[in-house]
Amino acid sequence: MQSRAVDVIRTKRDGGELSAEQTHAFVQAAATGGWPDYQLSALLMAIFLKGMTASETATLTRAMADSGKVLDLSDLPGVKVDKHSTGGVGDKVSLVLAPLAAACGVTVPMMSGRGLGHTGGTLDKLEAIPGFRTNLSEDELRAALKTVGCGMIGQSADVAPADKKLYALRDVTSTVESIPLITASILSKKIAEGISGLVMDVKCGRGAFMKTLPEAKALAESIQRVGTANGLTVRTLITNMDSPLGRAVGHSLEVIEAIETLKGNGPTDLTELCVRQAVLMVELTGIADPEGKVRSALHTGKAYRTFRLMVEQQGGNPEVTEDDTLLPTAPDLTPIPAPKAGYVADIDPYAVGTAVAHLGGGRNTAADQIDPAVGVIVAVKRGEQVQAGEMVFELHHRGSTGLKEAVDLLRGCFRVSDTPPAAQPLVIEELR
Amino acid sequence: MQSRAVDVIRTKRDGGELSAEQTHAFVQAAATGGWPDYQLSALLMAIFLKGMTASETATLTRAMADSGKVLDLSDLPGVKVDKHSTGGVGDKVSLVLAPLAAACGVTVPMMSGRGLGHTGGTLDKLEAIPGFRTNLSEDELRAALKTVGCGMIGQSADVAPADKKLYALRDVTSTVESIPLITASILSKKIAEGISGLVMDVKCGRGAFMKTLPEAKALAESIQRVGTANGLTVRTLITNMDSPLGRAVGHSLEVIEAIETLKGNGPTDLTELCVRQAVLMVELTGIADPEGKVRSALHTGKAYRTFRLMVEQQGGNPEVTEDDTLLPTAPDLTPIPAPKAGYVADIDPYAVGTAVAHLGGGRNTAADQIDPAVGVIVAVKRGEQVQAGEMVFELHHRGSTGLKEAVDLLRGCFRVSDTPPAAQPLVIEELR
Repeated sequence: MQSRAVDVIRTKRDGGELSAEQTHAFVQAAATGGWPDYQLSALLMAIFLKGMTASETATLTRAMADSGKVLDLSDLPGVKVDKHSTGGVGDKVSLVLAPLAAACGVTVPMMSGRGLGHTGGTLDKLEAIPGFRTNLSEDELRAALKTVGCGMIGQSADVAPADKKLYALRDVTSTVESIPLITASILSKKIAEGISGLVMDVKCGRGAFMKTLPEAKALAESIQRVGTANGLTVRTLITNMDSPLGRAVGHSLEVIEAIETLKGNGPTDLTELCVRQAVLMVELTGIADPEGKVRSALHTGKAYRTFRLMVEQQGGNPEVTEDDTLLPTAPDLTPIPAPKAGYVADIDPYAVGTAVAHLGGGRNTAADQIDPAVGVIVAVKRGEQVQAGEMVFELHHRGSTGLKEAVDLLRGCFRVSDTPPAAQPLVIEELR
Repeated sequence: MQSRAVDVIRTKRDGGELSAEQTHAFVQAAATGGWPDYQLSALLMAIFLKGMTASETATLTRAMADSGKVLDLSDLPGVKVDKHSTGGVGDKVSLVLAPLAAACGVTVPMMSGRGLGHTGGTLDKLEAIPGFRTNLSEDELRAALKTVGCGMIGQSADVAPADKKLYALRDVTSTVESIPLITASILSKKIAEGISGLVMDVKCGRGAFMKTLPEAKALAESIQRVGTANGLTVRTLITNMDSPLGRAVGHSLEVIEAIETLKGNGPTDLTELCVRQAVLMVELTGIADPEGKVRSALHTGKAYRTFRLMVEQQGGNPEVTEDDTLLPTAPDLTPIPAPKAGYVADIDPYAVGTAVAHLGGGRNTAADQIDPAVGVIVAVKRGEQVQAGEMVFELHHRGSTGLKEAVDLLRGCFRVSDTPPAAQPLVIEELR
């Protein structure tokens, strides 16, 4: 017998565990419109407040994956591994990582999202490259994986439709920040890609979705448990997001920095995080000497050439890797100087991300258009010395749009002190 | 600035207290459709799980009353007092109480509801009387109050529209059993009637909405606090609903029993509960010697005559008080005998109410039609002695409809024991 909505809601409302049948009824209803939205949202709030066990979350995740098309890539050679990040300010790791891991022999069907709020999205960054298409068909993705070793795409309409419906509802009912719901949303799409391994980057800090270590750990552990329960091999890093990652924030600027990193000229923090994640991805395939392979792919230019191949394969102009001016650029530059000499003790990544959004490089709602040209260069990183009047930030903008708000945010978001700040580890913890 | 739905939901989700402005935004949205249902229902679930303070509930209640028409009866003479019961099996108190209190000089604008599930509704019972109209206009209600002293009506479309919307949503999202939401729903409609005093009967036990004393007490205390905060003088009784009230269950049968009670021939429990509540209503008007007034109104036939006047005033045939056969009657009678001699130790009121519903005297959904003729007579009450084979229940029915289910329920719902059961107080507690 089909579970009735009111009974499923009551079970969770009273803190009970949903049966597999109840969970399937819920997911099916979300995918097909079988329950009205007001019942879905009441259940989402009950899940938010009463939680879900690991086994409930695993069932929910699998049901959400099975609510749409699940890719079968078993005919393609190589072990399929993807990576997912919960998102941070300046996090362009995916752009480096997909070609880097592919250059080491990993098959990387990477499904990414768009930006919302103060963080940018991988799809938006890729689309800053003229001609780059992220809406590959399944055949095109297969061709990319065969030819290049990686393909970077968005979530198509037929993948995890239950997740699409529930995500949209969560966004407007204040039920986003729920560990089981986040876990199911992330992993259902990954399972639908047909991968066997996943490297997960849970960002932690003011610039991240998870602000505190306990929250980040709870999500990391949930992803590990639920991914494993669904047959994925998962490696999860909890990484610092209390400073912007790298020096570039904004779509074109981040593409440029990703290319520089692939050329071996990237900022240390970004490069090391890309290497660390690539090593984990290679490890998951069983290929020998992962770290040697990854560093060699960077030094020999193989990863860089794979990036060019990928851009070309997906319809983009590969010459952007040699000529920045082929990317959208903002006409105006405004520096923010340091008020005094000393050490940069703190840069609030949330403020930097919000400043870029004010300049037009972010979305308030999913329907907003973004301007890929605008952004902020973080000229001096945390821990570095600065002279009075020396540039700390450089705004790339279009004259008036949001400039005052962005300048105010950036002026107020960093601290210069007389002594160097204590070092912060980039990778806080690794779960396996 | 108008409060945004997501912020209001988040505040309550996180256990915070809604500001008056947030509460008004919510109620306004419910009344006008300003928020989509999925946001209303997410907030209802958050309120269900996180609760509301007395002051929040008071604000919610007032806002819900103010969402529609609020009667101003200050031009009518007398103190306006109403009564509300949370509903029980065989609870026909309102039919006796309104004319009884009116006969003592109280002005009683009584707004009642329809039955759902295992309990009957006052409106449905009144409408068993041929011609009786409960949909009086405001002018007709005023005329009734002036002429008779009481008027018994349903909730018109323009009274507390926010409550109508929220009640319908709660019903389908498993958010009914919430003390603050129940309190606001009950009191908003009472405040909208323009009364200054309220006698509240919170029923407690298997046949009631509140099954346990702690639940009943929590609702009673909430009604007291929130009513008082909104300027009402409230007296609340917590009364026993672990047995059917009186001997009649079913619409016509209950009208007959109410008339018998007004004639002074009612069952003891029903009569005493009507007297107790009428005394409280008279007390609230400040009239001297309430108990003397009430008993005299019963004994002299004044209350009975007021009932006849009321029926006539509202379009019904007053001759039903002298001739039962003018009410709808069921063609078939089936007795349920006692299996052995002894004392009736227990009668489950929920089973009796459900049996009547099976016979056609109840609603599963608000759209269902009810059959006023069917019902059950409780021939032997709890504590009374019975002989083997003596009739315990008499079913009034129409042949086959639900008969087997009703007979099975009734056979299984009472217990005969060798010793008399301990007495149960009818009124468990009085709050003032």
